[in-house]
Amino acid sequence: MKFSKLYAPTTKENPKDAVLPSHIFLTRAGFIEQIGSGLYNFLPLGKMVLEKIKTIVKEEMDKAGAQELNLSFITPSDLWKESGRYSVFGKELLRFKDRKENEFVLGPTHEEAILSLVKNKITSYKQLPLHLYQIGLKFRDEARPRFGLLRCREFLMKDGYSFHSNEEDLQREFDLMYKTYSQIFTRLGFDFRVVNADSGAIGGSGSKEFMVLTDNGEDDILTCQNCTYAANIEVAKRAKKECKDERPEANYASRFHTPNVRSIEELADFFKINKFYTIKAIVKKAIYENESKFIVFFIRGCDELQEVKALNAANALELQDANEEELIKIGLCPGFIGFVGLKDIEFYIDQELENEKQMIIGANEKDYHLVGIDVVNLNKNRFKDLVAVKEGDCCIECGAKLKKSKGIEVGHIFKLGQKYSKAMNANFLDENGKAQAFYMGCYGIGVSRLVAVAIEASYDDKGCIWNKILSPFDLNIIISNMKDEKIVAYANNLYENLKKEGIKVLLDDRNERFGVKINDFELMGFPYALVIGKNFEENKLEFIQRKDLKKEVIDTNRVLEFIKKTVL
Amino acid sequence: MKFSKLYAPTTKENPKDAVLPSHIFLTRAGFIEQIGSGLYNFLPLGKMVLEKIKTIVKEEMDKAGAQELNLSFITPSDLWKESGRYSVFGKELLRFKDRKENEFVLGPTHEEAILSLVKNKITSYKQLPLHLYQIGLKFRDEARPRFGLLRCREFLMKDGYSFHSNEEDLQREFDLMYKTYSQIFTRLGFDFRVVNADSGAIGGSGSKEFMVLTDNGEDDILTCQNCTYAANIEVAKRAKKECKDERPEANYASRFHTPNVRSIEELADFFKINKFYTIKAIVKKAIYENESKFIVFFIRGCDELQEVKALNAANALELQDANEEELIKIGLCPGFIGFVGLKDIEFYIDQELENEKQMIIGANEKDYHLVGIDVVNLNKNRFKDLVAVKEGDCCIECGAKLKKSKGIEVGHIFKLGQKYSKAMNANFLDENGKAQAFYMGCYGIGVSRLVAVAIEASYDDKGCIWNKILSPFDLNIIISNMKDEKIVAYANNLYENLKKEGIKVLLDDRNERFGVKINDFELMGFPYALVIGKNFEENKLEFIQRKDLKKEVIDTNRVLEFIKKTVL
Repeated sequence: MKFSKLYAPTTKENPKDAVLPSHIFLTRAGFIEQIGSGLYNFLPLGKMVLEKIKTIVKEEMDKAGAQELNLSFITPSDLWKESGRYSVFGKELLRFKDRKENEFVLGPTHEEAILSLVKNKITSYKQLPLHLYQIGLKFRDEARPRFGLLRCREFLMKDGYSFHSNEEDLQREFDLMYKTYSQIFTRLGFDFRVVNADSGAIGGSGSKEFMVLTDNGEDDILTCQNCTYAANIEVAKRAKKECKDERPEANYASRFHTPNVRSIEELADFFKINKFYTIKAIVKKAIYENESKFIVFFIRGCDELQEVKALNAANALELQDANEEELIKIGLCPGFIGFVGLKDIEFYIDQELENEKQMIIGANEKDYHLVGIDVVNLNKNRFKDLVAVKEGDCCIECGAKLKKSKGIEVGHIFKLGQKYSKAMNANFLDENGKAQAFYMGCYGIGVSRLVAVAIEASYDDKGCIWNKILSPFDLNIIISNMKDEKIVAYANNLYENLKKEGIKVLLDDRNERFGVKINDFELMGFPYALVIGKNFEENKLEFIQRKDLKKEVIDTNRVLEFIKKTVL
Repeated sequence: MKFSKLYAPTTKENPKDAVLPSHIFLTRAGFIEQIGSGLYNFLPLGKMVLEKIKTIVKEEMDKAGAQELNLSFITPSDLWKESGRYSVFGKELLRFKDRKENEFVLGPTHEEAILSLVKNKITSYKQLPLHLYQIGLKFRDEARPRFGLLRCREFLMKDGYSFHSNEEDLQREFDLMYKTYSQIFTRLGFDFRVVNADSGAIGGSGSKEFMVLTDNGEDDILTCQNCTYAANIEVAKRAKKECKDERPEANYASRFHTPNVRSIEELADFFKINKFYTIKAIVKKAIYENESKFIVFFIRGCDELQEVKALNAANALELQDANEEELIKIGLCPGFIGFVGLKDIEFYIDQELENEKQMIIGANEKDYHLVGIDVVNLNKNRFKDLVAVKEGDCCIECGAKLKKSKGIEVGHIFKLGQKYSKAMNANFLDENGKAQAFYMGCYGIGVSRLVAVAIEASYDDKGCIWNKILSPFDLNIIISNMKDEKIVAYANNLYENLKKEGIKVLLDDRNERFGVKINDFELMGFPYALVIGKNFEENKLEFIQRKDLKKEVIDTNRVLEFIKKTVL
């Protein structure tokens, strides 16, 4: 394609509020443009990348035996009411009414829609398994759309849904999707990890996330240095933490005057013990569909509360911070909260504290702590996994050290089990003629997000660095001086010859200065450039690798062969 | 593909409220499924057809030099307010608010969005022309969604927008799109006509519709039997109508007592004249953005009012029928309305009545008509093209007879001129450094609608009849008896061999009776079937053409060659 015809408006100015390289460079290089909060247009270059991603996703999904379809983006609310998610999905679910006051949602995911589709159509175990997928629009009304394509509101997703007659067959498909997704992200050229994950609003009995490792990732993931264990920090487990420091000795439940000792640091200092032997309390306001209540979470003083784990323990829609006033109102003493005074208050304790002895904890009384507390004789249900696993903690599988990295979620596969099929009464007849709810899996890839992920994984301070698989063009030919007829003629001729060889060339034939053209090449980031410039008289051309900006002088007589060998 | 794996739930029951073959058969054959009013899922077979259509559309658009992009489906309302269409587009424009109470619309078309995109990016005539297009979702909140995919609410559209520095260049692109669209619809295998059309809510200085001829078309089109003139009835013109019958003689404006003569038929009978010499009045309530008013339209007694022409004459958003009570209230006498008593009422007269003499018209007085009325001395602006052209009327270009057909609109190309660019202040600098608003064109194809159009154009009482271009499969191999191992083995072997030849085969390997399989073949309508049945022992197979259900016996030893020759 000739650059003079390409619609790719480049700019030197960063988009406002942009902090991530992908947001900045994709916008500046004319791949995407924001049209509203969390709403993006894909310009021709962005669209080309998107199509390449879609093709690879489709090829691998088809190879795995899934069938492509398109579900209506606009979904009647009734389906969401049937599954129960209409009320619990929160404000991300955009609800609206049509001209006849009927209620609809903009589909943020399509479990309900797909179940309504197969219900009463798939009636026998003989018709199973079945895997249907689409690559289509989604909308999630994010509270704070940001990071360009990484957290936008309208986006393109590959969502697949599978149906099975039993748990084992669901597991087989889940494993197949694990392989299929791995193949997709490998083909796309990404460095990724598969991690255990929280199932969030989708739910189900187990899920894995595919994370591309990047410095700017939104997610923290923990990976074992020794074995294959890897997990999102939201669900990461660890071998039970131990401490070699001395345990504080004391009689059972001695009450100590600890004036102004409110923080865990102060407490450990005061008693000259390791924070490991203290218990801290975090109080949250838990929001449910029709009510809210305060919940206290107890963890070791040396640990941090993992919010998603706490949310799941509380089985709430949302957790909000509680302020001191609120604490006092329910009879808690800020800075000194402990097991005392919790009669009417729900509380959970981190599972590692079960049966722990001789601990120090607040007395729920100003300037007093209790020493020598044993965490025993409590209901099993009180104990939950609540702590945020840290780098350096030990692997639950093998005991080796865990390493923390930043990742961006690009895929997520779920074993839904019968969650939705039971709610929506979607049954089939099994081998014994008995009605059973479908076993379901669902599998998502954030297709439009991948365009940004590719750049987060590969950029420098000048702009994008596309890999060969995703780059819209294989080669950028730069005509240094449009007034030099010989150079122009040569470049056009070479361009035509390369096109015939199946090489996708962008010929920069714009009436622009050489500096502008080189800057645009570096900003747009196609893998290679060939400059036809001042040494052309001596039959010399300059070949540039975008990745490291390494330059090489090529003789005109071997240029065709060299390019064919290098760029494809 | 093996039928046992394909998700294509067929049914014998017609979808409720379905009247059109495409709606009935596409649903019954498992190509599409309705999920709500005017909302459809495309199942795997429907999706395959859709993809074939998209590919052809994309190939031809790219060949014409247009560049593909994707505009955000959700569009900020501000853009629509800027163009002025937010208030005038009517209820088809679905408006909603997000969680922050910001206003958006579901894009029914994207003139505003594309202008906002290129504005301040395309700043010089040197960057023109430019043509950008997308194949994306649209939503129009139809008052009465019906006819399956033909009048649904969420649909897939190819919409392209071109930008030019002058009228001539716009005309050049318009002509190019005329050719491109003709090529697309030819490749898709449609019998179509290009007709003059009303520009509707899109507006602009001229437009052409592409109509596929079908018995069940929503549109009436008139085509000259002699020359190339063709037009949608909404805008069709004719040579001025003439009448050889005698003109009624009378003194100027004689008042005649015509008791109970209210209809044009009764009037013509009463005076024993041709209806051509009478004038009838149709009163409509015209709805505007902030007001409504009654308007009287006068046409010959032998003609019918064309509603779209009347709407354009009134420049209103909508025309509603006026009832007798309303007429009386504004001083009109139902059944006897004429030019008398219109002092404060807006009225228009069909242009063919200009300077007409000795006409008969109501006296606006019960049981009285005026005879010998001359339609003279009226302001030019009163005269508009108002009548519905009929079959048998004469062509405005050559005078030959016009023929009426039914058509379905599949494409529409518009010369928008500067309508939107002026409203949105989208300018470029011309050769003289002067700011000018872009000259725009826009070009639409109803992509998902084409799936239905293909069936409206080709079906019989048993089901769909796909042409080779759009059919999801080239051949349907039917195993008559799954218990006959020899037949099953032979069929599987043939299936594998044909796949290697690049033939798309659906192998019906379901444990179903032969009758069910044949019925499904006829309902789904792939071009050919090969039955491996009872004569297989004698090395005979049965080959069926779906189009005419013609059967042919094929020897197994020549089957591969025969199929390769026939189906591709």
